[in-house]
Amino acid sequence: MRTIGALIFPGFELLDLFGPMQMFGLLKQEFALELVAEVTGAVKSNQGPSAQADRSIQDRARYDVLFIPGGMGTRREVSNAGLLEWIAEASENAEFSLTVCTGSALLARSGCLDGRRATTNKSAFSWVSEQGPNVLWQRKARWVEDGPFITSSGVSAGMDMTLGAIALMHGRDTAEKVAMWCEYDWHDDPNWDPFAEIHGLA
Amino acid sequence: MRTIGALIFPGFELLDLFGPMQMFGLLKQEFALELVAEVTGAVKSNQGPSAQADRSIQDRARYDVLFIPGGMGTRREVSNAGLLEWIAEASENAEFSLTVCTGSALLARSGCLDGRRATTNKSAFSWVSEQGPNVLWQRKARWVEDGPFITSSGVSAGMDMTLGAIALMHGRDTAEKVAMWCEYDWHDDPNWDPFAEIHGLA
Repeated sequence: MRTIGALIFPGFELLDLFGPMQMFGLLKQEFALELVAEVTGAVKSNQGPSAQADRSIQDRARYDVLFIPGGMGTRREVSNAGLLEWIAEASENAEFSLTVCTGSALLARSGCLDGRRATTNKSAFSWVSEQGPNVLWQRKARWVEDGPFITSSGVSAGMDMTLGAIALMHGRDTAEKVAMWCEYDWHDDPNWDPFAEIHGLA
Repeated sequence: MRTIGALIFPGFELLDLFGPMQMFGLLKQEFALELVAEVTGAVKSNQGPSAQADRSIQDRARYDVLFIPGGMGTRREVSNAGLLEWIAEASENAEFSLTVCTGSALLARSGCLDGRRATTNKSAFSWVSEQGPNVLWQRKARWVEDGPFITSSGVSAGMDMTLGAIALMHGRDTAEKVAMWCEYDWHDDPNWDPFAEIHGLA
């Protein structure tokens, strides 16, 4: 059983967070999910609806998997020193650190991705890559695995990455079962990325 | 501007709800989202994380779009007379009623779908169809539009349906823009449904 600590902050992107949580969360014997924020309670998404943070970062709980979604809120949080410090520590303690979309900007700003290959949303690529000048940003990738760091492209890419992460941890059959339960057409090739071309990155 | 009332209940499915809310919610000039439950406050999903209900059904607010996700909780809620009554009234007042996955069981039990074509999750097809013996259940469909009722297949199908609904309300270009913002590969054919075959329904 692995614990997943999913960070949320005002202005997080709903699907970045809940697509992956859907998929990990179906494997109830394998993963236990917790939403973590600066303060417990309701945290408003970029789209309006709020999720409930179960835990405060003040608790400094350890997780096997650190998960960071993106969203407009990342533009503010890249300057939040306390949050970045928590991310660095949580990532250091975790077996895997996963990001979706502009969530990689937060992981980059925490310093964890230096010297690592990573990717992000293609429409926000230039802003995100400025947040981590020492990161080896991949311009064309649905998701990128580099050791304990698994980073994905924009929004819906988080689901493809999650199935990739499940395959890595529990085998391909398990990932395919989850995709089927979700009636999801998994883009299982991490190099599939038509959006890189649309945004002039490939 | 249309208001969307999205019903949540204990054991709702995260992606059923938040995939569509992501997509509607990106169109901030067009849609205002509200999560509605029997009681306001945190409502626990089938996967563990909780969403925050902004409104109680007791308020009997009117919405332009009624949205109902699925999830294990529907097995209990099909016997919740007060909730079914709210659904019938909200659907009557709405321009559109949308369901994802086993959410169609609730709409069917409220009586709204009688004589209408509708679909649902293919792995729960027989249970759901028993909830509405007078509904014209479609065995093979990603989603089905019948007048004001738009029902989708399982979990991730809600996103394809939502883009279809956005295309219906605001044109195909808008739906394609939303898909691109989400880096989402839209299955835009409502008849695409490989899962019907997997479950012996086609």
